[in-house]
Amino acid sequence: MGRTSDARSKILHAAQSLMELRGYSALGVAEICKTAGVPKGSFYYFFESKEALALTVLDEQWAAQRRDWERALRGDQEPMLRLRQLFEDTAAAQRAGQATCGTVSGCMFGNLTLELSNQTEPIRQRLQEIFDAQVGMVEDVISAAVERGDVTVTDVRDAARSVVAQLEGQVLFAKLYNDTAPLDALWPNCLALLGARAPESGVAAV
Amino acid sequence: MGRTSDARSKILHAAQSLMELRGYSALGVAEICKTAGVPKGSFYYFFESKEALALTVLDEQWAAQRRDWERALRGDQEPMLRLRQLFEDTAAAQRAGQATCGTVSGCMFGNLTLELSNQTEPIRQRLQEIFDAQVGMVEDVISAAVERGDVTVTDVRDAARSVVAQLEGQVLFAKLYNDTAPLDALWPNCLALLGARAPESGVAAV
Repeated sequence: MGRTSDARSKILHAAQSLMELRGYSALGVAEICKTAGVPKGSFYYFFESKEALALTVLDEQWAAQRRDWERALRGDQEPMLRLRQLFEDTAAAQRAGQATCGTVSGCMFGNLTLELSNQTEPIRQRLQEIFDAQVGMVEDVISAAVERGDVTVTDVRDAARSVVAQLEGQVLFAKLYNDTAPLDALWPNCLALLGARAPESGVAAV
Repeated sequence: MGRTSDARSKILHAAQSLMELRGYSALGVAEICKTAGVPKGSFYYFFESKEALALTVLDEQWAAQRRDWERALRGDQEPMLRLRQLFEDTAAAQRAGQATCGTVSGCMFGNLTLELSNQTEPIRQRLQEIFDAQVGMVEDVISAAVERGDVTVTDVRDAARSVVAQLEGQVLFAKLYNDTAPLDALWPNCLALLGARAPESGVAAV
C-alpha cells in the first residue's frame, strides 16, 4: 500500500472513531487530520468536504455492519431465533464499545439521524437508505416467521420498522445511562410486538 | 419587564429554536446572540457558558412538556386511553413543528442524548433526570392499568421504559423521513408491548 492510500485510510479510521464518539458537528477537519496524523492538504486530496468524508464513513460502517446483520439474520435457525441473534450481537457490540471507550457510544446511524438528518439532505438520504436496508432485512425474517405461523402481524413492513424502532430506542437508553442492561428488553419486546409464540428451541416468551 | 430580563429571555428563546433544529455542537454563542438580537456581552452576564445555557433550555423545555404529559397522563380516562392521548399529542406536536419549520425536528431530549450524552456529564445527568421522569409518569399509568387487569407485564418499570423507547425510536424515523406517519404505530405497539386487552371505549387492539 502506497503512502497515498495509507493517508486516506488513516483519515477514514480517525473520522470513524471520532464520529462514533462525538457525532459530526463537533468535529473539524483539522482535528480529524491531527488524529489521523496526516497533513490537512491530504484531506482535500481525498475528500471534497467534511460531508463527503462523513458519507464515506457511513458507507464503510454500514458495509461492515451489514455483514454482521446478514450473518445473524440469514442463518439456518428458525426466523425468530435469528432476530434474537441480532439483539444479542447488538448488545455484545455495545458492551465491547463500552469496554474500549469507557462509554456506550450507541448506533452511529441513530446518532447522526437525530443530530443532523434534518440539516443535510445527502446525509439524510444515505441514512434513509441504511435504515431502509435494515428494516428490509428484518422484514424478510418476519415474513419467514409469518409463513411458519410463528407470528401474527397485520403489516410486515410496519412490524419490521417497529422492531428496529424499539432497538434504536433501547440503544438510546443504553447510551444515556452508559449501561447496556436496557438491551435485555429487546428480545421479549420483539416477541410481544410481533404477537409471537415462543420459539421451539426452548426460549420462553414473555 | 426591564431590558435585562428581556435579553435573557431572548437568548433562551433563540437557543431553544436553534437547538431544536440543529442540536448543540453546531451552534456558537455568537450565532445565538445574533439570532436573539442581543450583544455577546449580555450572554455571559446571564450564562456562564454555552453548556449552562443548554441546561437552562432543557429545564424550560421539560417544564413545558411535563405540563403536556401531565395533562395527557393524569386525566380521568381509563389508563390505556391516557397513553393513547400521549401518543396523539406527540404526533400533533411533531406535525405542528413540521408545519412551522418544514421539517420534523424530533424530540430535543432524544436528539441531545444521541448527540452528546456521552460527552458532557452535566447534560447527561439532566437528560437522565428528564427521561427518568417520563418513564416514571408512564409507569404510574401502567400500574393503574395493571390494577384494573387491563395489561399483563412482568416488570412495570421495564415496560414503561419500553413504551418510551418505542416512542423515541418512532420519532427517530419520523425525523429521518420527515414524515409523521411512523407515529401512527405508537398506539398499537403500546398495546402489544403491554399485552393489553382492548380498552372499553371502542378502540380495537391490534
